[in-house]
Amino acid sequence: MDPLRDLMYPSSIAVWGASDNPLKMGTMQMANLLETGFPGKVYPIHPRLDTVLGCPAFPDIASVDRTVDLALLTLPTGVVPGVLEECGRAGIKRAIVISGGFKEAGAAGLAAEREIHAIARAHGIRFLGPNCVGVLNAAVPLNCTTIPDPPLGGGIAIASQSGAYTAMIYPLLRELGMKIRQTISVGNEADLDLVDCLGYLAGEPDIKAIGLYVETIRRPREFVRLAKQAALTKPVAAMYVGGTEAGSRSSRSHTGALSGPDGVYDGLFRQSGVIRADDMDEMLDILKLASLQKLDGPRLAVITNSGGPGSSLAYHIEKAGLRVPPFSDALAARLDEMTGPLAFVRNPIDLTFDTNLFLLRDLAATVMASGEVDGVVIYGLMGSEFTGNLEKHFPAIGAARDSWEASYRGLLAEFGELPARHGKLLAVMSFLPGSSTTVSTLTAAGIPVFSGARRLARALASICAA
Amino acid sequence: MDPLRDLMYPSSIAVWGASDNPLKMGTMQMANLLETGFPGKVYPIHPRLDTVLGCPAFPDIASVDRTVDLALLTLPTGVVPGVLEECGRAGIKRAIVISGGFKEAGAAGLAAEREIHAIARAHGIRFLGPNCVGVLNAAVPLNCTTIPDPPLGGGIAIASQSGAYTAMIYPLLRELGMKIRQTISVGNEADLDLVDCLGYLAGEPDIKAIGLYVETIRRPREFVRLAKQAALTKPVAAMYVGGTEAGSRSSRSHTGALSGPDGVYDGLFRQSGVIRADDMDEMLDILKLASLQKLDGPRLAVITNSGGPGSSLAYHIEKAGLRVPPFSDALAARLDEMTGPLAFVRNPIDLTFDTNLFLLRDLAATVMASGEVDGVVIYGLMGSEFTGNLEKHFPAIGAARDSWEASYRGLLAEFGELPARHGKLLAVMSFLPGSSTTVSTLTAAGIPVFSGARRLARALASICAA
Repeated sequence: MDPLRDLMYPSSIAVWGASDNPLKMGTMQMANLLETGFPGKVYPIHPRLDTVLGCPAFPDIASVDRTVDLALLTLPTGVVPGVLEECGRAGIKRAIVISGGFKEAGAAGLAAEREIHAIARAHGIRFLGPNCVGVLNAAVPLNCTTIPDPPLGGGIAIASQSGAYTAMIYPLLRELGMKIRQTISVGNEADLDLVDCLGYLAGEPDIKAIGLYVETIRRPREFVRLAKQAALTKPVAAMYVGGTEAGSRSSRSHTGALSGPDGVYDGLFRQSGVIRADDMDEMLDILKLASLQKLDGPRLAVITNSGGPGSSLAYHIEKAGLRVPPFSDALAARLDEMTGPLAFVRNPIDLTFDTNLFLLRDLAATVMASGEVDGVVIYGLMGSEFTGNLEKHFPAIGAARDSWEASYRGLLAEFGELPARHGKLLAVMSFLPGSSTTVSTLTAAGIPVFSGARRLARALASICAA
Repeated sequence: MDPLRDLMYPSSIAVWGASDNPLKMGTMQMANLLETGFPGKVYPIHPRLDTVLGCPAFPDIASVDRTVDLALLTLPTGVVPGVLEECGRAGIKRAIVISGGFKEAGAAGLAAEREIHAIARAHGIRFLGPNCVGVLNAAVPLNCTTIPDPPLGGGIAIASQSGAYTAMIYPLLRELGMKIRQTISVGNEADLDLVDCLGYLAGEPDIKAIGLYVETIRRPREFVRLAKQAALTKPVAAMYVGGTEAGSRSSRSHTGALSGPDGVYDGLFRQSGVIRADDMDEMLDILKLASLQKLDGPRLAVITNSGGPGSSLAYHIEKAGLRVPPFSDALAARLDEMTGPLAFVRNPIDLTFDTNLFLLRDLAATVMASGEVDGVVIYGLMGSEFTGNLEKHFPAIGAARDSWEASYRGLLAEFGELPARHGKLLAVMSFLPGSSTTVSTLTAAGIPVFSGARRLARALASICAA
């Protein structure tokens, strides 16, 4: 059994560091664990308190009358070895050590890190950390990070040598209208490392795309082997920022990682079939697209009701190395019949201010069915987001909003059926927020939405199979 | 007097195309005009109705008993020339022609466009359009676009040959926590063009940074002259997407613009001192930074409480051509005293999980005062956004939130005073949404906030003076 599988699907957790002090990280983590709806048992361990956040507390792990699946340690550095030893004696086999002050803090910290590693090995404990921020698993749900309200769902997992790039980005994911299924903060990797995470996530059936934040790869040969294997079933994207002088200096202090030149990691990723992302926003773009859609070839159609976004999409798709081929005369004639005189139908199709969503849907279906493209990108899907000021003058609009929204959502769901029906990619560009009906409904229907042409084009190029 | 100045600051507007039909674009525009708080007089012109959106309507412009400043025409193509002729006879000197179906629609449209140009010239009317979406001026406030609730304020103006890249991006601007002061959609540029907008905006004292979406420059020599002049007082950024085969094809159909190769526009922008942006999101990044801050040299300090964002900032700042220089021993020793043992103080300064905002403030001030850098970038400012789940368990947190938020806002305002005091740039990276206390308060205090390291670094490089 994969040790990370046990760790990510616990049915009971013992928590050290939660108390009646809301400013303590351990308290925040336990609150998030409870409020995110962890369905198993939570055992706060505290020397004085009878209860912590409403849960009965225990003075030590030996007092808990069962073998707990997972230990979560958010404690001062010095007491971690002793508590881990107690965990071992109590039969706990999985742990997450949040505490810092280990290898990243110099010689004394390194000694402490070796000590906990030895204790864990002696007891058969596999653990994440130290110096990490915990994990998230929407399937449980399990959120033992300090960040509340992650947007649970979807098929994306992120494993990271930076805690911020797992938990702190939950608000950003929400803003982007994205969901997240699993995150793993590996910290100093004293035991379980990023390579273990890759192997584990490759075997998780609900994970459709894997993102890695890399400051160093400690086992490059194993990484290449596992990444190649993972890439057979799901896209893997990685970002690496150790390749400049200051970037390397920073990584070294952060996780004690020895970074290498940019080119070395570029090569490592390339031979592993891993998509390199330039920054977290680009990695999120790739994961969003790759978790929902496939692109089997480089030919894209652009359908727009506005010239600027249409031209931008055409430009950036070509700049990214893909194609926006002119349609055949036969297809153009067919589209011409559908659009009427104003529209330019040679690809991009520019409907100029037309907001007929049925027409957009039918154009997308016709272009897909022609076989002349491998995917379609649409700009121009927008709901009632822009009628706000009209309701004050036309109460009927407000009264009809619910039924109107329902049919709008139904129509967007029909867009969601096009990719499977035609075996082609569909993606949307929109300036609407992640919280809008348009973005949330499309995302739920499997259609990724991007706010910028360049970002969408680069994501398309990165997942293009041919 | 600049004709665009008159057009952007009208005290009375006659509106054609608004009616009792909320689905008509003219109705939406008039609703937005009223609800955004236009303080002048609005005269709907309608052949049948007595009132439109609660305003007394007039059967024609001749029936209005004053000379109106601005005519807003959202009418079928065929009736535009006649109405414009009536405007001329009524003494109206400025117009915005929203209607499409002109040059962009072929030979008949081109003839109609020439006709309205001749009518305007005969009556001394200067106008925007046709085939545009209107304008926004927060100083009036004037919003005659179809998009409600623009985030009014700040010092950014955008003039664009794409309507979508003016009005449709208001929701995106809001999401990014940005404000917008003026937008001008130029459409087909039958009369006033992008070059006129550049000249006008250069003379607007409240505009601190100008963005242009360019599909063609019709008067390149005048553009270079005006851009050079504008760049003396405020940064000008431009995006151009006509430089690929499909991009050019798309632009041609959109505004009838003849695009040129990428390199030609690159050269044109370079000799004009215009910053070229790759896409709208990059242009918004540049405008956000340039409207609030100056960077007089390439040396940046990075202060972070999390390794991943710190390493990413260091990496991308160097990749963008700027520097993250190690601090002198003297400065490092001073910082060391302030931070204690865990922090790495050689630049980046990594405080590892420390959330002491006073320390962050004092470190930024000390680094600025040292003269060893030209600017400081901070990751790690976060308010009470992450305590949501604690309030359920600790009611005292909820009770104290208001006073806590007030002191947090006060502290953020102190960050806002640092750039002027030390003559150095300050910018922040954060994953919090534009609507958060952190982002909105920092932005109001003049500190731009970015959600990604690469985006922030590229914006820094683009505005760096040295």
